[in-house]
Amino acid sequence: MIGRARELDAADPLGEYRSRFTLPDGVIYLDGNSLGALPKDAPEAMQRVIKSEWGEGLIRSWNDADWFGMAARIGGKIAPLIGARPDEVIACDTVSVNIFKLIAAALEMRPGRKVVLSEPGNFPTDIYMIEGLERQGLAAQRLAPREQIMAALDEDVALLMLTHAHYKTGEVFDMAALTQAAHNSGALVFWDLSHSTGALPVDLNGMDADFAVGCGYKYLCGGPGAPAFAFVAERHHGDLKQPLTGWFGHARPFAFSDEYEKAPGIEQLQCGTSPVLGLAALEVGVDLIAEIGVARLHQKSQALSEFFLECVAHHGLDVELVSPADAAARGSQLSFRHPHAYPICQALIARGVIGDFRAPDILRLGFAPAYLRFEDMFEAARHLAEVISSEEWKREEYGRRAAVT
Amino acid sequence: MIGRARELDAADPLGEYRSRFTLPDGVIYLDGNSLGALPKDAPEAMQRVIKSEWGEGLIRSWNDADWFGMAARIGGKIAPLIGARPDEVIACDTVSVNIFKLIAAALEMRPGRKVVLSEPGNFPTDIYMIEGLERQGLAAQRLAPREQIMAALDEDVALLMLTHAHYKTGEVFDMAALTQAAHNSGALVFWDLSHSTGALPVDLNGMDADFAVGCGYKYLCGGPGAPAFAFVAERHHGDLKQPLTGWFGHARPFAFSDEYEKAPGIEQLQCGTSPVLGLAALEVGVDLIAEIGVARLHQKSQALSEFFLECVAHHGLDVELVSPADAAARGSQLSFRHPHAYPICQALIARGVIGDFRAPDILRLGFAPAYLRFEDMFEAARHLAEVISSEEWKREEYGRRAAVT
Repeated sequence: MIGRARELDAADPLGEYRSRFTLPDGVIYLDGNSLGALPKDAPEAMQRVIKSEWGEGLIRSWNDADWFGMAARIGGKIAPLIGARPDEVIACDTVSVNIFKLIAAALEMRPGRKVVLSEPGNFPTDIYMIEGLERQGLAAQRLAPREQIMAALDEDVALLMLTHAHYKTGEVFDMAALTQAAHNSGALVFWDLSHSTGALPVDLNGMDADFAVGCGYKYLCGGPGAPAFAFVAERHHGDLKQPLTGWFGHARPFAFSDEYEKAPGIEQLQCGTSPVLGLAALEVGVDLIAEIGVARLHQKSQALSEFFLECVAHHGLDVELVSPADAAARGSQLSFRHPHAYPICQALIARGVIGDFRAPDILRLGFAPAYLRFEDMFEAARHLAEVISSEEWKREEYGRRAAVT
Repeated sequence: MIGRARELDAADPLGEYRSRFTLPDGVIYLDGNSLGALPKDAPEAMQRVIKSEWGEGLIRSWNDADWFGMAARIGGKIAPLIGARPDEVIACDTVSVNIFKLIAAALEMRPGRKVVLSEPGNFPTDIYMIEGLERQGLAAQRLAPREQIMAALDEDVALLMLTHAHYKTGEVFDMAALTQAAHNSGALVFWDLSHSTGALPVDLNGMDADFAVGCGYKYLCGGPGAPAFAFVAERHHGDLKQPLTGWFGHARPFAFSDEYEKAPGIEQLQCGTSPVLGLAALEVGVDLIAEIGVARLHQKSQALSEFFLECVAHHGLDVELVSPADAAARGSQLSFRHPHAYPICQALIARGVIGDFRAPDILRLGFAPAYLRFEDMFEAARHLAEVISSEEWKREEYGRRAAVT
């Protein structure tokens, strides 16, 4: 298998990009779906922003370094990765805060309907933000298992909100079919692309999606806690009313008027002052991922996970795949169920193979296609086989839970 | 006057701190109330976070570098600057987003009352966030001029929300008296400390305040668009319900439960994932400002502005002071009204004296006490006198408005 791995690496058109990222020695990093690796250009870019733009330019950099334009500029660069127009995407706030804005806006666009439909086990923050609006008396949460979602679309549903690639299993929804079904029932559609953007192709405008959000710190490699992004289809820009009406979403923030008047374009989604340092790091990641291109990233992502499954089969490992076996039906990850997933994950980390554990029994391995090699797949599978066959995971230290896992 | 200025600088117990900041050559920076200067320790601290914690530690740094604890840790360091307990303050989101959370929470705590009372001309985002909740049908905005605020406190008022030091004039409210009056009327009290924190003493617990927010990028020198902070008095932690119920505010975020259960302490104010890079820069600024201490900062701030006024009087300048003449009644700034404030501000900037313009006719000069010298006051007043007496401001280039001012 190692020979095959090396052949695949030698033939990999994305092989050259690995050198554009910092990857620690002795580490096989299978958690880029949680926090993307550091682009090598990022430290220098950040030093320029900090020392020159902040330190020397000071307040003048809002104009001179175009800090005012960063949020929309970065949004415009994310747009082609998700099938959007550049003026339909903006980088701001967090995924959670952007979800709140867009659910609230959707509810205002569907008077008489209060239900926000999602699935149980969606990424928690998505569901919690519905709960927040429910507590305000504005929304009613409805969760339907994925095979019953179509049937749950009735005349009470204002918004269908789903995550494209499931954070735990990687299973993807048929976005186009669900968008069509929701529209047929009179509902709007909101996609969370946190586990897709930069790894899977998405065509928001091709399917007439209404809203979307996504994460800056996973496949986009924007750094820990990077600003998120939000998409609103241009046809909604005029009518949209989101409740987090901060001064950066105003048509003329520096008029300092007492009356809010929303900006006409996607800038209306902004709330407070742009997080310049976070945006600066995000832009480096977005530039690099956009340079590689989502089609090539997706192709390699599938090839990596398929080869990992071959390696697992080769070792005859007794782990249950909970991700779809069909590569076309899953995101850029493989999740395995094992009763001892937690200590196995810890034992792997001790060997330098960094995946993550998702409660209660999932070992989740992400295959960020921009910087991983086929040889990493071979080595990771070998370590996993050794950890299990040797019962190394039974060591006491691997059973102790970290304060936050 | 220059002799006096130099004597004052020589005797200044805070003089040594200037060297802890980067200040560009040839610049007198009177806009630290809008964006604080760069602490010299920040670039290296950020390189460590980026290269070591992100680049080498990767996902492990959430535990190993305590990224999870940053928001509360930095809040705890801000607490003594505002008279709060360390477990009552957290650094998260933006001022605007935190205002939304806390207005909404206050409204839930005063059922039957919907009015949020503020003043016209408060910083716009504060008013806009009330408008956002009004659009949701949850709040009713009432704006009363400051001399009529006491009279406007009736049984409909759920919350009194004011900014301690006015962004435009620097005028400060008597926080204790207004807090008492609001409580007497059954309302809760919410202070925006954006233009106070790090320059003026504030004693939130001494006056039994309920809620507060403040800005990380002004006197705290946390960098452009730094995360904000929020305060909730400990007595409210149990009952508080804020609607932005993201996963980072959950009692156990990594249980990935479908049901939101708020964290018991101040962490419940968090929403999305912590903005690690922005927090890392903020922490450097907060550490430095806290080291100097707010009492000394306030004393020097008053001395600087008083000396500047002496210099202005010495030059016989025809500018109208719109800030209170009594240093005890204003924040760390002086604002002057002049019909040509905009081109005067631009002409000053061309000379390296950076203040700012606030529409329609205010020249605003901020005196960040941590890094300014009395000699800067002398020189800034001299430049102002020359710009006005020579009519230099009439040059065509100073009349052209920047895209965003």
